[in-house]
Amino acid sequence: MSVKTRLGNFFEDFFVGKKIPHATPRTVTEGDIALYTALTGSRFACGSADTFAQSLGFPRAPLDGILAFNLVFGKTVPDISLNAIANLGYADGRFGQPVYPGDTLTAESEVIGLKENRDGKTGIVYVRSRGANQRGEMVLDYCRWVMVRKKNAASPAPETLVPELPAAVAADALIVPAGVAVKRYDGVLSGSPDLWDDYQVGERIDHVDGMTIEESEHMMATRLYQNTARVHFNQHAEKDGRFGRRIVYGGYVIGMARALSFNGLANAFSVVAINAGRHVSPAFAGDTIYAWSEVVAKLDLPGRTDVGALRLRTVAAKDRPCADFPDKAADGAYDPSILLDFDYTVLMPRRM
Amino acid sequence: MSVKTRLGNFFEDFFVGKKIPHATPRTVTEGDIALYTALTGSRFACGSADTFAQSLGFPRAPLDGILAFNLVFGKTVPDISLNAIANLGYADGRFGQPVYPGDTLTAESEVIGLKENRDGKTGIVYVRSRGANQRGEMVLDYCRWVMVRKKNAASPAPETLVPELPAAVAADALIVPAGVAVKRYDGVLSGSPDLWDDYQVGERIDHVDGMTIEESEHMMATRLYQNTARVHFNQHAEKDGRFGRRIVYGGYVIGMARALSFNGLANAFSVVAINAGRHVSPAFAGDTIYAWSEVVAKLDLPGRTDVGALRLRTVAAKDRPCADFPDKAADGAYDPSILLDFDYTVLMPRRM
Amino acid sequence: MSVKTRLGNFFEDFFVGKKIPHATPRTVTEGDIALYTALTGSRFACGSADTFAQSLGFPRAPLDGILAFNLVFGKTVPDISLNAIANLGYADGRFGQPVYPGDTLTAESEVIGLKENRDGKTGIVYVRSRGANQRGEMVLDYCRWVMVRKKNAASPAPETLVPELPAAVAADALIVPAGVAVKRYDGVLSGSPDLWDDYQVGERIDHVDGMTIEESEHMMATRLYQNTARVHFNQHAEKDGRFGRRIVYGGYVIGMARALSFNGLANAFSVVAINAGRHVSPAFAGDTIYAWSEVVAKLDLPGRTDVGALRLRTVAAKDRPCADFPDKAADGAYDPSILLDFDYTVLMPRRM
Repeated sequence: MSVKTRLGNFFEDFFVGKKIPHATPRTVTEGDIALYTALTGSRFACGSADTFAQSLGFPRAPLDGILAFNLVFGKTVPDISLNAIANLGYADGRFGQPVYPGDTLTAESEVIGLKENRDGKTGIVYVRSRGANQRGEMVLDYCRWVMVRKKNAASPAPETLVPELPAAVAADALIVPAGVAVKRYDGVLSGSPDLWDDYQVGERIDHVDGMTIEESEHMMATRLYQNTARVHFNQHAEKDGRFGRRIVYGGYVIGMARALSFNGLANAFSVVAINAGRHVSPAFAGDTIYAWSEVVAKLDLPGRTDVGALRLRTVAAKDRPCADFPDKAADGAYDPSILLDFDYTVLMPRRM
Repeated sequence: MSVKTRLGNFFEDFFVGKKIPHATPRTVTEGDIALYTALTGSRFACGSADTFAQSLGFPRAPLDGILAFNLVFGKTVPDISLNAIANLGYADGRFGQPVYPGDTLTAESEVIGLKENRDGKTGIVYVRSRGANQRGEMVLDYCRWVMVRKKNAASPAPETLVPELPAAVAADALIVPAGVAVKRYDGVLSGSPDLWDDYQVGERIDHVDGMTIEESEHMMATRLYQNTARVHFNQHAEKDGRFGRRIVYGGYVIGMARALSFNGLANAFSVVAINAGRHVSPAFAGDTIYAWSEVVAKLDLPGRTDVGALRLRTVAAKDRPCADFPDKAADGAYDPSILLDFDYTVLMPRRM
Repeated sequence: MSVKTRLGNFFEDFFVGKKIPHATPRTVTEGDIALYTALTGSRFACGSADTFAQSLGFPRAPLDGILAFNLVFGKTVPDISLNAIANLGYADGRFGQPVYPGDTLTAESEVIGLKENRDGKTGIVYVRSRGANQRGEMVLDYCRWVMVRKKNAASPAPETLVPELPAAVAADALIVPAGVAVKRYDGVLSGSPDLWDDYQVGERIDHVDGMTIEESEHMMATRLYQNTARVHFNQHAEKDGRFGRRIVYGGYVIGMARALSFNGLANAFSVVAINAGRHVSPAFAGDTIYAWSEVVAKLDLPGRTDVGALRLRTVAAKDRPCADFPDKAADGAYDPSILLDFDYTVLMPRRM
């Protein structure tokens, strides 16, 4: 193996407090947005039209938060999860400055926790990753934890540190982008008259539509994000792997679930937090993705009457319509159709 | 079913004179054009190069008319044809202001006719749809009619009104974009020396090349147009549907036929009218599209010697080369290979 | 066959000294770059981020050289290789002015050699092709030779002229883009600390990763390049062809090999020459591409201490990891896995 080839970090390469600046800065363009639309079918008016975004106080249409998330996430992969066995969870994710075409994103991570597994061959690495624009402004700050292989099982176990992470981002920690102010909201152009006031805690919404994934689609999306995890791209290797085929990048499923959620949540114009998330089972080409959402909480935003926040749980399932809301059972076991259980917070206009 | 989910209109939801502003305004970008090129192979010089477009008097390369058509059409789907069984025809389509990157498109439709079918379960809805840019200028105005399901077979039939529509857009109704003036036309850069003068009414042109459609290609195109018709995307549902598989959006076939027509019609730099069109049979992934065209009419444009119009009929067939021009028989029955019979008008430079 | 349809040139249509201006000028956009990233996974920082490119003295991120090559190459296909049986080789390719979004590319070729084959049915055509931007500045100048069918076997053979072409572009013929000057190079953002000084002649680098090609991916790339060669697109015809399926455009394999080479050659920020290249065997959808590179030569650039050039040979193989560097044997026979043997020259920062 040439010493010039990067093979990613193994469990023993991480230590708490380690800061990792990630490679491959990325100037975001209208081309990225067009591809995101073509690959997910996103229809949120704020991201689709400059005019609509301007009516909300944005200078132009910002990137959908999940696209920004996937671009930042992609940068972290070569250092954090190239040797990961599983992407276990997310927490405390806050979106900051919106991302616009022309912005250049960079990312860095800090190791905030470590725990070797009992098998002695793997461990869990907790990182906080921060994406910034060319002015150094935070665009996304989130935690995730992954199970990573040890290079050498004989390496000593590090001291265990499991970070305390909030169950959800608090209302006063949410960032409403500067300048955003809703005066006259056009619920016809947006595709729905339902505003923040119209949603109830506990309400469940079936997003109805289904979308089938093709190999080229998830690979194009994942390459667009410059995510290099091998399991998504290499059928020659994966044919002998655990599943016998390429695994769809989980962030592509999140993007598709967000796009499907338009039907029922059309006015969720901005994603402001990722509270938690679990990739319950892997998705593969040929799977048809359906989704449903539950309103977990309604959050007043300090000092604002024009916009409120909804904490949502969006569940994506495969090959199974969601009219009856497939879920996890009392014992925590998920319905076998479920791919994703994603807990996040969106902004929505209030009735004034 | 949540009341927040939109399920589209049914036959009894329409009445003559009903005006429907459509959701999801769309800012068009260079990313959309790149995807259109990648998905259809379009090579018309006017749409490919700013320099060439400027030599014709455009400020920069405009979108191909069929791309603009598909973007406007896409907006109408959630309100007009989400519950459609068939997209039956087009008429009286005129293109107005060219569309450029940075323009934001919106669309609205008016119901101009209704006719319940004898089965009592379906009816035909005639609409006139209008796409406009951010300045409210018309970019496309066209009629189409679709067969739509009734929600309730017991609903009373509306009064029948079948609108009178012209067989073709007249020469004096065609809009040559402001500023367009051809002085020295470069038939080398455009790919063909053949100008308006060189075409004869009745002339048939085989476009020679064939292009095979993949699932991911038609789905990416259709999502790019934010067209939400379910039959294009959901294999899990369609496996039990009428055809057992996803149906290719007819507008993608039109775009592909237009792109194939470059070989023989390279100087048809602008689409200015859609006179009629019929999706004769559905296309599916794996089909190879061939096309041929007939010159239906040559139109002088009032007061112009630099540019003329050609009314064309382009026929697309699947899995069948078109050197012998597969067509409809005297009894009106189409050759079984035929997918599309599209009647439209283009601008072409005249020999000066 | 309509006289308006272009069928490309046959062997007897070429004569030495013939100059062929190619059709379809092309304005390059950020959309093209986004698609290139999505289709190849390119991660070179100079092409990914304006900020990084500016730190090297570029005004903004230029197109990767292989994308520029494929765009120029595409223009030449309808005139040079539409009736080609094989694309035999490249030589003396020099990149000039970098290509940026907004530039409009045109191309022309000159026939520099001809040799009829002994079978009397085919011949070899040597051309020098030149791509230029809207200011007429050379962006790429290269030779290639192709085997082309004769239309009529009875046509007399032309006088044989085989041009003398250099084995590689000399160091003093390489063009470092104006303004490029490396002062403080960021080997963290670029993804590798290895600079020009760290590579040794004869060193071999396994690029480790594998990428599986899908039909829609190679077709989208090839249409993006407006390359019209039929073998890439028409399954209906190719099912009865030599291979029974569509052939992946060789330039897509070059782009994928260049993208894979990031892992080991991350600081090869600019491609400045194509010395030679052979498409050893055809690639098909379903193939997984791996690659390895050899450092053929290290070139000092006249008067520069900040940047040096590496002459590289990158070999792409299918369905075979390259840790043991599959190669050609002493008798010149290639390992059966090999698709591409590409000899080119890149710029890389020097240690200062």
